[in-house]
Amino acid sequence: MGKKDSSRKAVSDAVARRLPTYYRHVCAMEAQGIQSVTSMQLAERVGNTSAQVRQDFFACGGVDGYSTSVLKNWLGTILGIKDEHHMVVVGAGNLGRAIISFQDFNRDNFFIDAVFDSNLMLEGMQINGIPILNVSALEDYLRENRVDIVVITTPADVAQSILEKAAAGGVKGVWNFAPADLRSSENIKVQNVHLTESLMTLSFRINETERIAEDE
Amino acid sequence: MGKKDSSRKAVSDAVARRLPTYYRHVCAMEAQGIQSVTSMQLAERVGNTSAQVRQDFFACGGVDGYSTSVLKNWLGTILGIKDEHHMVVVGAGNLGRAIISFQDFNRDNFFIDAVFDSNLMLEGMQINGIPILNVSALEDYLRENRVDIVVITTPADVAQSILEKAAAGGVKGVWNFAPADLRSSENIKVQNVHLTESLMTLSFRINETERIAEDE
Repeated sequence: MGKKDSSRKAVSDAVARRLPTYYRHVCAMEAQGIQSVTSMQLAERVGNTSAQVRQDFFACGGVDGYSTSVLKNWLGTILGIKDEHHMVVVGAGNLGRAIISFQDFNRDNFFIDAVFDSNLMLEGMQINGIPILNVSALEDYLRENRVDIVVITTPADVAQSILEKAAAGGVKGVWNFAPADLRSSENIKVQNVHLTESLMTLSFRINETERIAEDE
Repeated sequence: MGKKDSSRKAVSDAVARRLPTYYRHVCAMEAQGIQSVTSMQLAERVGNTSAQVRQDFFACGGVDGYSTSVLKNWLGTILGIKDEHHMVVVGAGNLGRAIISFQDFNRDNFFIDAVFDSNLMLEGMQINGIPILNVSALEDYLRENRVDIVVITTPADVAQSILEKAAAGGVKGVWNFAPADLRSSENIKVQNVHLTESLMTLSFRINETERIAEDE
């Protein structure tokens, strides 16, 4: 499925978004006892074409054969989830708490080690056994502990300063839920989850259907 | 910016995802007292090209002129956020609670009217003043009340049945946070937020940078 290719370059955002979906389906197929999977079968499950699946895999260097376990292993490796990722959450509001209580992450080797908040009243408390620290201690924490990913669930106006502290502390990635466009350097990757925009995209699709229907 | 076009057809997912970002920036520019905006200025703020901005606007029928307020109004209309959207949340866990407490939605005319959960112990309680009802009452509720959007924050295995109840109840859209690929008809739009996949995309980007660096 997709020839081997030793040249490495960054893949498009669309491919980067589809890879975890492939991984989820391949895991589900393995759990169902399905021992081999063709690009056609995988394409049917994820709702695109087999040519697309092959192209996406080729863009990531390609994989030989159709064994479900080989494919799962290969996807897990390129997704980087064979390695442990240590994370901290900045912002102990409802969204921060929701992310902390997501049990799914641990299964995939993502571990939340600490939560930071500006509210002094929360200091010393815990959420699901994870300590809440004051945000003023973030830089020291990053110097003294391994942190791969900082999750930002703060208001928009402080998100950029958190990203800069993360970058200065050698963090590799920021998972940003604040409704802000963060300016980042090459050394730190930013993945945005803009909830309000996602809801507006849905509202757009609903509205679009109604407009098309009116025109017909 | 983008010529007027009366022909209507569904735009691509990429365009549908970018429109709310344009809207957010145009609102911010208006709030800053900026009275007119060119496609170049908007492109710089969102980080793409002015040609892309013009193409995206053209795909949605186009808009005349460069007035910030005209543009905001036009984007708000095509995003459907001039109209009120009534929503219910199914699943009163941490993520459901986080969504309910997101105050931003109200500002954009999205209102959460009720929460449903299968836990009988929660029945009759409230979250932020919003009543929690038993999920067995969902179909009756949808018959008796206007609901435009159902937000699914349940486990994956029940998400499809919730979507089917929503579709049967005349709901127009589903905002799905369950890690499941829902099968839907033409009559109901589904917008997925797969948190684990978003985190894996970040992990992929971090890993990709390291692989490229090793190869060089």
